Amino acid sequence: MFKLHGIYAPIPTPFKDNKIALDELAGNMEFWLASQLEGIVVMGSNGEFIMLSPEEKCQLITAVCTQAKGKKPVVVGTGCESTQETIEFNHFAAGAGADAALVLSPNYFKKAMNDTVLKKFYLEVAEASPIPIILYNMPGNSGINLSAKLVAELADHPNIIGIKDSGGNIVQIAEIIHSAPDDFAVFAGSASFLFASLALGAAGGTLALANVFPNECARLQELVDKGKFAEAKELQLNLIEANNAVTTRWGVGGLKAALELIGLYGGEPRKPLMPLGDEDRELLAAIIKHTQEVCR
Amino acid sequence: MFKLHGIYAPIPTPFKDNKIALDELAGNMEFWLASQLEGIVVMGSNGEFIMLSPEEKCQLITAVCTQAKGKKPVVVGTGCESTQETIEFNHFAAGAGADAALVLSPNYFKKAMNDTVLKKFYLEVAEASPIPIILYNMPGNSGINLSAKLVAELADHPNIIGIKDSGGNIVQIAEIIHSAPDDFAVFAGSASFLFASLALGAAGGTLALANVFPNECARLQELVDKGKFAEAKELQLNLIEANNAVTTRWGVGGLKAALELIGLYGGEPRKPLMPLGDEDRELLAAIIKHTQEVCR
Amino acid sequence: MFKLHGIYAPIPTPFKDNKIALDELAGNMEFWLASQLEGIVVMGSNGEFIMLSPEEKCQLITAVCTQAKGKKPVVVGTGCESTQETIEFNHFAAGAGADAALVLSPNYFKKAMNDTVLKKFYLEVAEASPIPIILYNMPGNSGINLSAKLVAELADHPNIIGIKDSGGNIVQIAEIIHSAPDDFAVFAGSASFLFASLALGAAGGTLALANVFPNECARLQELVDKGKFAEAKELQLNLIEANNAVTTRWGVGGLKAALELIGLYGGEPRKPLMPLGDEDRELLAAIIKHTQEVCR
Amino acid sequence: MFKLHGIYAPIPTPFKDNKIALDELAGNMEFWLASQLEGIVVMGSNGEFIMLSPEEKCQLITAVCTQAKGKKPVVVGTGCESTQETIEFNHFAAGAGADAALVLSPNYFKKAMNDTVLKKFYLEVAEASPIPIILYNMPGNSGINLSAKLVAELADHPNIIGIKDSGGNIVQIAEIIHSAPDDFAVFAGSASFLFASLALGAAGGTLALANVFPNECARLQELVDKGKFAEAKELQLNLIEANNAVTTRWGVGGLKAALELIGLYGGEPRKPLMPLGDEDRELLAAIIKHTQEVCR
Repeated sequence: MFKLHGIYAPIPTPFKDNKIALDELAGNMEFWLASQLEGIVVMGSNGEFIMLSPEEKCQLITAVCTQAKGKKPVVVGTGCESTQETIEFNHFAAGAGADAALVLSPNYFKKAMNDTVLKKFYLEVAEASPIPIILYNMPGNSGINLSAKLVAELADHPNIIGIKDSGGNIVQIAEIIHSAPDDFAVFAGSASFLFASLALGAAGGTLALANVFPNECARLQELVDKGKFAEAKELQLNLIEANNAVTTRWGVGGLKAALELIGLYGGEPRKPLMPLGDEDRELLAAIIKHTQEVCR
Repeated sequence: MFKLHGIYAPIPTPFKDNKIALDELAGNMEFWLASQLEGIVVMGSNGEFIMLSPEEKCQLITAVCTQAKGKKPVVVGTGCESTQETIEFNHFAAGAGADAALVLSPNYFKKAMNDTVLKKFYLEVAEASPIPIILYNMPGNSGINLSAKLVAELADHPNIIGIKDSGGNIVQIAEIIHSAPDDFAVFAGSASFLFASLALGAAGGTLALANVFPNECARLQELVDKGKFAEAKELQLNLIEANNAVTTRWGVGGLKAALELIGLYGGEPRKPLMPLGDEDRELLAAIIKHTQEVCR
Repeated sequence: MFKLHGIYAPIPTPFKDNKIALDELAGNMEFWLASQLEGIVVMGSNGEFIMLSPEEKCQLITAVCTQAKGKKPVVVGTGCESTQETIEFNHFAAGAGADAALVLSPNYFKKAMNDTVLKKFYLEVAEASPIPIILYNMPGNSGINLSAKLVAELADHPNIIGIKDSGGNIVQIAEIIHSAPDDFAVFAGSASFLFASLALGAAGGTLALANVFPNECARLQELVDKGKFAEAKELQLNLIEANNAVTTRWGVGGLKAALELIGLYGGEPRKPLMPLGDEDRELLAAIIKHTQEVCR
Repeated sequence: MFKLHGIYAPIPTPFKDNKIALDELAGNMEFWLASQLEGIVVMGSNGEFIMLSPEEKCQLITAVCTQAKGKKPVVVGTGCESTQETIEFNHFAAGAGADAALVLSPNYFKKAMNDTVLKKFYLEVAEASPIPIILYNMPGNSGINLSAKLVAELADHPNIIGIKDSGGNIVQIAEIIHSAPDDFAVFAGSASFLFASLALGAAGGTLALANVFPNECARLQELVDKGKFAEAKELQLNLIEANNAVTTRWGVGGLKAALELIGLYGGEPRKPLMPLGDEDRELLAAIIKHTQEVCR
């Protein structure tokens, strides 16, 4: 069975004239497939999956899976508000060649999403899915936290192989690692807490920053694996500012601008998300340059 | 131009075998169209719009607008995460005969949804929409609050005619009423603060409870309009328990069970939302019965 | 037994050279005692009780109770983190002639303050207190909300006669009014939701704004009592801006500056609270003046 | 100048007949002074400082500083709501022989505590204090977070030597370490994130759990210092359950019960805090025993 490990990039979806820019996507993919990344995540939060029509989602999944085939594993974000639709996307992703599905919890009806409901949702999805499931905890966007207790229970299901935890609560991450089976993979959901997570036993990370600094992120994990903690710590501290820039500070617009700064295609996010203004773009350029220098 | 006033029911979407149950919908609609409700809201939160495919949304809008034509006005929930998709649904709703569009703010990228972005979103949508726009503030589900200051600014646009405020912050509601133009309609988003909102000058309400007690909700507004505040207050206090039951306590599952208790079609919500269990159904029945008695 | 009704001013504590300014306090008190206020609250949040030493608290209580004797009732804020200390202040306040004690819940150990603990706290305090107890719900400062369910249970105790609810959740206020005994007095804790609370059956309010506009606040209640709801609504809307100025916007520093603008003694709050700067003071003066004009 | 490093225990205050139990305190202190702890914190949150009268605070500070003199450094919690009172306690603590003061931010007036006010507060306190200052970030109790940006600015003051961060946001901890001067000590405020903090460069921790497992906590830091990360990680994971038990799960009551289970004096917390019931005490005993076994 597919085993989750290493650094994945949750790739942005490139748009041109408000359509998915397939050629530009292929160009970007070449860069990531040639890097030291372990794999690719398509239709994560940074992929603006929430902005895509069902047809666009299928188009995007197919393009990425086809290009990555035989080169790197692909994880597809498939979480929808309804159980049924989530299952349908899991089938589509499997058919397209995806290795696993990253499943965000339903979250619009926040008050209704108690542990009983969430457990039932994930178990039904896991049962019905032809490919393994990765839980996706993203409280900053969803307003829902998957508790350590719930995750530990879900981790017993053979088709639920890991979690991407973007909440950044390091105690919760430690509790999950401590209470889940050994082969359950915990992934840091942001580069800002990658080192702490790896030190506690995480299996890797799915990091917006890995789109821009794939080899640096991979090197951080390599350093931890080799027991070079002092160097890993330095690298971690040096990555924080650039990570903030492409996540909390400027979001998807910042990430796409950063891609352009390293020679990839960025383009604009879908409205109402906004591209970076000129002033912010200069600030970002300085941060990227400084990060490149200190992380050499 | 269409003027927003009175009590609207945000109708649930009936399902059968996980498909929209059009016949049962028509049956329910007859009840609401024959009631003292002012109008119908389709594809609100209680309509599980977030669970519907684009095709189902079109099907539902068409069915409701067609049946209501010439009888009561219809407001259609059209808010999507992307500006473009929201505008497209506004056009579809207009074509189907809708009187206005209820537009929830995009909310998945919570940190990005500052006032500048939200203002731009609503103005673009309002500019492009062939029918008037009603802002939809629903912080409990969206995690986003439309501030009084933002709403007052948006209220100046001629195609933005009102707000449904489900947040229940009565000070914010008062501030909006005080600062927006006189013809901007403020609607209470839940029956639990309908009386307070009306007393402060709200134009009406869109209330889950109005699906079950349409005439009682309409009577509350009538009492306020006639200056019978003591009676209105009593009615308000008597409606709170039933309102909790079909909103915060049991949500959509509770609302659909309540429809069955008054002889309409309820059915199950879409998974992962759950129908009421037997025990809760009995509790609900007692609450509905008690409310019917004290509100006579 | 003492019955809670009408508009109370939670008076600020005047300081001079960082000591309680007793003469200036007496001067201010003359204004409030001559106004249409029903009574005085000393050592509320606006009284900076949290900044006072035990000796200063006793000094302040004595001064206010002595001056008000035979003129207006006095309610004393006595809530401390420990049950024992709260009870001791209740005894001191009773001895000084206070009519009732306003008891904020302990709140530093937020996670420990569940309903069981809060209920035990209030019942012990009520049992031991020689004067009636008023619950004080102030989630904005304490981080603790006294739920409608808890309040309804506590309301059954004969020595717990009411609640000052500063949370502003109008549904919770309605639920308390609906579920507590008829003689349990619900007081609005801020002028911004006074009208809505009174319309629902509240007995009055304890309002920072009542220090500055005592007669206007009293008139609002009078209008509601006489059934003049349209006028009451207008007055309410006209008071919101000034209320914001002396509460959420500028806090205690704003309230003290407002006192100076109407000819009373203000002075500086205790550090780290800061007095208003010159620019804010001008903005405040314009707001006070405008409010005086529209509320005439 | 005093340098902050290593593991400190924030000792509980023992009560007997609701008075500080000085003999029992001395007995407990012998245990901690004989342990591998680096130092003692008195009047932290777990010391129920918020429950103590000014006289009791002085009594407690004197007793602890006197007994620890020449054996281990003592840090005294001195934060009060007013700047002046905080400074006065710093002077008292210095006179009693304290090595540093741990200063919680004022927090009752939450809305007023912006970065400008907090910065002014800490700088004034630092200027006036005869002993070095340690910032105390405790958002769970205070509702206030000291941001990394604010902390980095304060860290430049020569009399502000470190921070105890109990918030547990590991990214914020990393940012502080990255942006503050090298000699600014960052202390983990709870054992649950001690390892992650140390791995990122923290200088030690002040840990409720260190009252019960002083040597195990000290060993964790020793392992990190020696580069034995795998062992440190195992020890960290094994300490989490016991840490939860004496912090988030059962609070001060749990911590005092745990002291009794290891042969120290516990006693009851001050009301309204509650002692552990029999059932919880058994659960706690099992957790302590299991932790002792796995941490050997």
